[in-house]
Amino acid sequence: MLEFERLIDHHCHGVMPGTLSRAQLEAIISEGHRPVPGCTNFDKPVGMVLRRYCAPVLGLEPHASPEDYMARRTELGGEEASRRLLRASGLTGVLIDTGHRADDILDVPQMADYSGAYAREVVRIEAVMETAARTAGSGEQLLSAFEALLEERSADAIALKSIVAYRTTFDIDQSAPTRAEAAAAGDAWLKSNAASGWRRLEDATLIRHALYVALDICQQRRFPLQLHVGVGDRDVNMPKCDPTVFIPFVLQAEAKDVPLALLHCYPFIQESTWMAEVFSNVYYDIGFTLNFTGPEARKIMEQAMGMGPFFKHLYSSDAFGLAELFYLGRIQFQRTLGAVLSDWIAAGDCTLKDADRIVAMITHGNTERIYRL
Amino acid sequence: MLEFERLIDHHCHGVMPGTLSRAQLEAIISEGHRPVPGCTNFDKPVGMVLRRYCAPVLGLEPHASPEDYMARRTELGGEEASRRLLRASGLTGVLIDTGHRADDILDVPQMADYSGAYAREVVRIEAVMETAARTAGSGEQLLSAFEALLEERSADAIALKSIVAYRTTFDIDQSAPTRAEAAAAGDAWLKSNAASGWRRLEDATLIRHALYVALDICQQRRFPLQLHVGVGDRDVNMPKCDPTVFIPFVLQAEAKDVPLALLHCYPFIQESTWMAEVFSNVYYDIGFTLNFTGPEARKIMEQAMGMGPFFKHLYSSDAFGLAELFYLGRIQFQRTLGAVLSDWIAAGDCTLKDADRIVAMITHGNTERIYRL
Amino acid sequence: MLEFERLIDHHCHGVMPGTLSRAQLEAIISEGHRPVPGCTNFDKPVGMVLRRYCAPVLGLEPHASPEDYMARRTELGGEEASRRLLRASGLTGVLIDTGHRADDILDVPQMADYSGAYAREVVRIEAVMETAARTAGSGEQLLSAFEALLEERSADAIALKSIVAYRTTFDIDQSAPTRAEAAAAGDAWLKSNAASGWRRLEDATLIRHALYVALDICQQRRFPLQLHVGVGDRDVNMPKCDPTVFIPFVLQAEAKDVPLALLHCYPFIQESTWMAEVFSNVYYDIGFTLNFTGPEARKIMEQAMGMGPFFKHLYSSDAFGLAELFYLGRIQFQRTLGAVLSDWIAAGDCTLKDADRIVAMITHGNTERIYRL
Repeated sequence: MLEFERLIDHHCHGVMPGTLSRAQLEAIISEGHRPVPGCTNFDKPVGMVLRRYCAPVLGLEPHASPEDYMARRTELGGEEASRRLLRASGLTGVLIDTGHRADDILDVPQMADYSGAYAREVVRIEAVMETAARTAGSGEQLLSAFEALLEERSADAIALKSIVAYRTTFDIDQSAPTRAEAAAAGDAWLKSNAASGWRRLEDATLIRHALYVALDICQQRRFPLQLHVGVGDRDVNMPKCDPTVFIPFVLQAEAKDVPLALLHCYPFIQESTWMAEVFSNVYYDIGFTLNFTGPEARKIMEQAMGMGPFFKHLYSSDAFGLAELFYLGRIQFQRTLGAVLSDWIAAGDCTLKDADRIVAMITHGNTERIYRL
Repeated sequence: MLEFERLIDHHCHGVMPGTLSRAQLEAIISEGHRPVPGCTNFDKPVGMVLRRYCAPVLGLEPHASPEDYMARRTELGGEEASRRLLRASGLTGVLIDTGHRADDILDVPQMADYSGAYAREVVRIEAVMETAARTAGSGEQLLSAFEALLEERSADAIALKSIVAYRTTFDIDQSAPTRAEAAAAGDAWLKSNAASGWRRLEDATLIRHALYVALDICQQRRFPLQLHVGVGDRDVNMPKCDPTVFIPFVLQAEAKDVPLALLHCYPFIQESTWMAEVFSNVYYDIGFTLNFTGPEARKIMEQAMGMGPFFKHLYSSDAFGLAELFYLGRIQFQRTLGAVLSDWIAAGDCTLKDADRIVAMITHGNTERIYRL
Repeated sequence: MLEFERLIDHHCHGVMPGTLSRAQLEAIISEGHRPVPGCTNFDKPVGMVLRRYCAPVLGLEPHASPEDYMARRTELGGEEASRRLLRASGLTGVLIDTGHRADDILDVPQMADYSGAYAREVVRIEAVMETAARTAGSGEQLLSAFEALLEERSADAIALKSIVAYRTTFDIDQSAPTRAEAAAAGDAWLKSNAASGWRRLEDATLIRHALYVALDICQQRRFPLQLHVGVGDRDVNMPKCDPTVFIPFVLQAEAKDVPLALLHCYPFIQESTWMAEVFSNVYYDIGFTLNFTGPEARKIMEQAMGMGPFFKHLYSSDAFGLAELFYLGRIQFQRTLGAVLSDWIAAGDCTLKDADRIVAMITHGNTERIYRL
């Protein structure tokens, strides 16, 4: 009854080309790096819903065994499997973060081709800074090169993104550094790279500089800044990835009317919905989380629908590498949001018309408004 | 079947007099300060249950549109609307915090008149300190004036309240300062007020002094100290508003047999129920949270019923400004607690007699016991 | 339909011998130290399920009053009551932490006799260090005595356990101290004990030393290290008992292939399941929590089944002192896991065969694998 036709995935990544081995596929459905001998990642919530929902898209019965699933996937070939799953996801648009392992995954036009959706790029500011560092001879050159490159990349982009929470946590000085401070930090990083080998950007001063440059571009172009929050790779310092720790920066962004989209949010979903309630510029999604909680995803959706304004909730899959994660993202989203709203209607808390309006906001309306699609 | 007849709202505020505009009403159902252009606070969980439940009290169909609701409310006039909603709340008693925007809201006798319930005052210690500061000439005078005024205000009050979590967070030295330290801090605040204009009380030393003076009064008068926890205005440093951070002070209060009532508790409800389990003097409510989570409030009640002793759970609406929030507080409380207990009975975990006893404790028994009503 | 026949309780304690008074029994179903006058611990979630489920094991109707329950328990005598409840728990094995109040509770062979299950010992490293300190004359002697004693105790044990979170929190330097640093810390502790009376082990340097000695033994013997997480006695500093704070140590253990079993995990269950997802050596249980959340335990199980791999979830009761807590642990576990999986099957997310495999993993398979039973 509820209408999920127009669905925009506002935060995702490209899929890997080629035909994946079972070990490769199992690695992508985990944020861990080391398999446990004798155990399989199909024995996880995400593995369970993958077998249920993705198997039929490839022409198998639901709950096909991992062996049968991999055999069928190989028979079809990776490209055909990805194309089927992406088409089945029925997406209107995909906003793609190109800043993580870009060489291993399909690019934006390829993703448009595979999915049949319009595809736009989200530029990761830390990746741009790292690109700029490859050729800069001094901290000052680094800043200039970063600014020019970010400006250039932003021209075609739909938004910027920061993974500051990964690199320094949110628990940093959140003011803008002076240009001299940033240049000095750049000098130090470049010198260390030259002396002891390349190290990814982890300097808080440089990242703060990047964040404030990004805020200005977002303000100018009137598009959002996405912020990684909570779960993700295992190198997070979780208590300091609580988005409430970043409120001083949020206030700076609010003063510039720049929307901030909090991504994933687990295990800080209650905190994130509260921030969406009190800050006019805070938006949130539960991408990644819906897929990785499998059959229990509904409880996550209930949290997401608990305190946040309906006009602040966004849809994303946070799929990376695997077309299955796009498809599951859609399925998990539609069935959990549908179940929550059906219960609201059944309890008399909500009319069907209201529920339809809420679905329209979360599936595409909010995204279209803040990304100015 | 379960009996909710005698219900005491142990933490709430006065309602605003006069007839509110839509902008005013929307502002009160948010803790944010800036509306989002093109969006309405009726599109939030609290807005949805407001339309469902409050509309019939004003003579409309459930789910009336925001436009129809505002038109009817204006037609009735603010006073009549407030009287109807407060009477419909069916409260036995209201314990009113008078320390926030006292000039904008009805006073305690007016609230008794509007609601038909007995009304008693809860005195906010930071507000008393700020009043004392208006005329004090020195830190020592400030302390004396504060102590005299708090003593005087306590004579008619039913409890004291602190918003230390807002002003300094819980992450402070939690011992009592010496009188000399407190006086010096008072000197510094008064001097700064004289030199650079009035600033609200945010000095940790003065607030610690106020807390220990309050503890002594509470011990003497055998009444509770309420503590703001977690959600509220946007200027909270959330991770440091976790009530477990305040355990050293809780132990001091326990040694004096002073009950502490943790207010709101979101997103620290699990932590709060655990504290109620391990500290003999810790009580908790989920006021504000039930209203603002709207149709999903039941999951909040489930958390509140998860680990806490039944003899530690209190009822509050935390309504401020708007009579609708009193009415919704009652509805949300009754339907969620009723649903949880009905399920317990259906599952065979609880007899009807036990459930009735639990309702009696939470609706009024615990409150009557610790407030000595 | 689902098979819970073979159930191993991987973390529990002995029961108290003798016939308990009501005050004694009420004290054991609380982590608090002070009763609230006029209130009873039977008016808590754990008290409610105790009356429902344990009463029939002693020959009473479900929901017997506390008075009737105590009268019947006394009539049977403590030993008979304990034997009935432990037998009714139907456990295959019990892994018993002997490091807490060992003189007050039954020992490992007695627990085997009472329960009919095989019983093995888990050695608490802080208790071993405290034993070593009773006779050591210097820090160096302390370290040698600790190492020898831990080696000796480990020969018959099935695992080691640390309560570092209680004693120092997880928020400490997590590297191994040098031997000289540890010996100096030992000297200081022994000197302070001699001068001002015995104090339990709370020195972070000594505990870090103990943890790294324990890791080596665990690696050698290929058995797990259990880690207390979150709830427990009231002297925890809760925000710093978040297991994500201990990730630097977790990485050291992962490098040595030592499984870490996170115990209780409330209120950090979401965090714990995420750690089980990203670290190959992290396991978790929700012992204690299921009992103390009574009728609402299912929501806890839902969290535990939300993101964690099925091959990382373990069963424990964390029962201490009271045979009722063993029985309730089993009941609460079986009914909540059964309910979650039945719903998965009903929703089509899971086949019966898959559900049976998940039950087998959590009830005994995972425990047998990592403890090498």
